[in-house]
Amino acid sequence: VIGSRQWILARRPRGPVQAGDFALREEAVFEPGEGEAVAATRWLSFEPAMRGWLDDAPDRWGRTAGVAAPGYGVTVDVGEVVKGPAVAEVVASRRPDLHPGDLVRGLFGWREHVSLGTGAGFQRLDPSVPVPVALGVLGGTGLTAYMGIVSVGSAVAGETVVVSGAAGAVGSVAGQIARIRGCRVIGIAGGAEKRRWLLEACRFDEVVDYKAEDVAVRLRQLCPDSIDVYFDNVGGPALEAAIANMAVHGRIVLCGLVSSYDSARDGTSPGGPGNLFHLIARRVSMQGYLLSDYADRLPEAAAWLRDREAAGELAHREDIAEGFEQAPAAFLRLFSGANQGKQLLRL
Amino acid sequence: VIGSRQWILARRPRGPVQAGDFALREEAVFEPGEGEAVAATRWLSFEPAMRGWLDDAPDRWGRTAGVAAPGYGVTVDVGEVVKGPAVAEVVASRRPDLHPGDLVRGLFGWREHVSLGTGAGFQRLDPSVPVPVALGVLGGTGLTAYMGIVSVGSAVAGETVVVSGAAGAVGSVAGQIARIRGCRVIGIAGGAEKRRWLLEACRFDEVVDYKAEDVAVRLRQLCPDSIDVYFDNVGGPALEAAIANMAVHGRIVLCGLVSSYDSARDGTSPGGPGNLFHLIARRVSMQGYLLSDYADRLPEAAAWLRDREAAGELAHREDIAEGFEQAPAAFLRLFSGANQGKQLLRL
Repeated sequence: VIGSRQWILARRPRGPVQAGDFALREEAVFEPGEGEAVAATRWLSFEPAMRGWLDDAPDRWGRTAGVAAPGYGVTVDVGEVVKGPAVAEVVASRRPDLHPGDLVRGLFGWREHVSLGTGAGFQRLDPSVPVPVALGVLGGTGLTAYMGIVSVGSAVAGETVVVSGAAGAVGSVAGQIARIRGCRVIGIAGGAEKRRWLLEACRFDEVVDYKAEDVAVRLRQLCPDSIDVYFDNVGGPALEAAIANMAVHGRIVLCGLVSSYDSARDGTSPGGPGNLFHLIARRVSMQGYLLSDYADRLPEAAAWLRDREAAGELAHREDIAEGFEQAPAAFLRLFSGANQGKQLLRL
Repeated sequence: VIGSRQWILARRPRGPVQAGDFALREEAVFEPGEGEAVAATRWLSFEPAMRGWLDDAPDRWGRTAGVAAPGYGVTVDVGEVVKGPAVAEVVASRRPDLHPGDLVRGLFGWREHVSLGTGAGFQRLDPSVPVPVALGVLGGTGLTAYMGIVSVGSAVAGETVVVSGAAGAVGSVAGQIARIRGCRVIGIAGGAEKRRWLLEACRFDEVVDYKAEDVAVRLRQLCPDSIDVYFDNVGGPALEAAIANMAVHGRIVLCGLVSSYDSARDGTSPGGPGNLFHLIARRVSMQGYLLSDYADRLPEAAAWLRDREAAGELAHREDIAEGFEQAPAAFLRLFSGANQGKQLLRL
């Protein structure tokens, strides 16, 4: 029996999530029982959608927001270990299919050790792929980007694709998939460093720096009324500016709405885009999607991403925090825009 | 040569359109030249989209709003005759294909007489169908409703369909098409009289009276998280309440956004729905459409509507104003919700 730490939800966030919404707790780790294994967490992975899992406030329709909000059904109770994807290494095992040294991935949560009983959900990792790559461009991140551009947006060669949150984990891959498919790709990201990385490493055609430029004015210049696919990770003013410039029969792919995740719940929502009439005049579709609906296309997508990544055609980067105690801080980076690429934490 | 009146656009509306935005003008009507006919207007037909035709204010993206707004490319200049659909009867003809007494339909505008030269666009009316029916349930109104429910929304038996602006010309037909296809149909309309008509004549399953009830609360009671198709004519709070209750893989059909037609242009837009994250969590699509994209399905739709109307299965009513001088007042009824059914004017 050794000591093991966990991050629990100390209180529900009010408005922007804060470090103080979480608290460290220490518990004993037991030896595995018959048919069980114990694994030590090596990596945590962070996604914006996890913000919704922390929420349980009744919304104005009298419903628990967590049910329908970006958490997509997953909720974390106050006092419970924070849920989240992780990679762990088996350290002791009394089940025949797991051996010390095996790397497994699952929704293990923010804990230093995880018990893997018969009912535990996990997948094995391919030991030939670096864990940050497996969790990022070849994991749910890259697969989500692929489905959004290919299956939902149906972006084809010659079309103009605009991606918001372009320097983020999903956005940067989405833009590159579109570029490889022969599209003209315009990214929206914040800051000169991200802009340069998207232009030079990801080879986007244009990048709008929303911290230095007026997104509405710049999109009007770069792609007036000619956005065929808008891949949205942020919502807010960027979505409104994109709607104003959609081409006839354009498609808006709603992958995330980071800008609204806090405000939608604390009653301060500034409202959504006020120009939806463009969707009628231009016959535009707006489609929300989740990766889980595309199970039948996962093998095709995974193979495509693996081949392109192996060939060096997909730039990617991971923003790796160090130390279990940094988990809340690493998570908060997603919402301040501080992270550069896939946000991970190494224990 | 006789005197003939026309309604011209006297000034561009600022905010809500007003009677004072229009002015009467008198002009001479000439005998038809060689290859021409002159027709006397018998009916005017009014649609909410015509509001957009009156607008030319640059929006915040520096573009002429009329280009992209609900006018869909049609604009009316100040001093020009107001454009709009009409039915006219040929009174004098020097073209071999038109004879006095022939009834023709076209975008003739608000004028007492129209000259039909070689380039004039018009269609003949079937003399066996009453003009109000031809302009309403069997015209663009009914065809728009059909395409929205069948082609865009793909509503099938057993699904729940919610229609806003349900007592309007398009909405009432849309709901009935869904009902005939075996859907459960819930309407949103204003006032006890409209509610009764929708329940008794149109046989909707439920009707929410937005003037007497909280739409969000009522939808939550009637169809919690279970709207398969939302057919929207109004936008605004009803759209937000519908989004909150969409079923997984639900479809939002954007036919009109009457609530935003004025405010979107005068800079007072209250913003759109603030709960778009539901579109992701529930994988909902929102699709704007125009009838003009569905030319290949028009014969099928027209035949379906004609058969159902002839069999007495489609309730419809027309709100008929009298007298050319009432044209602006009749048009304004669309935006106050005063009209009961298809708004027409008989000269």
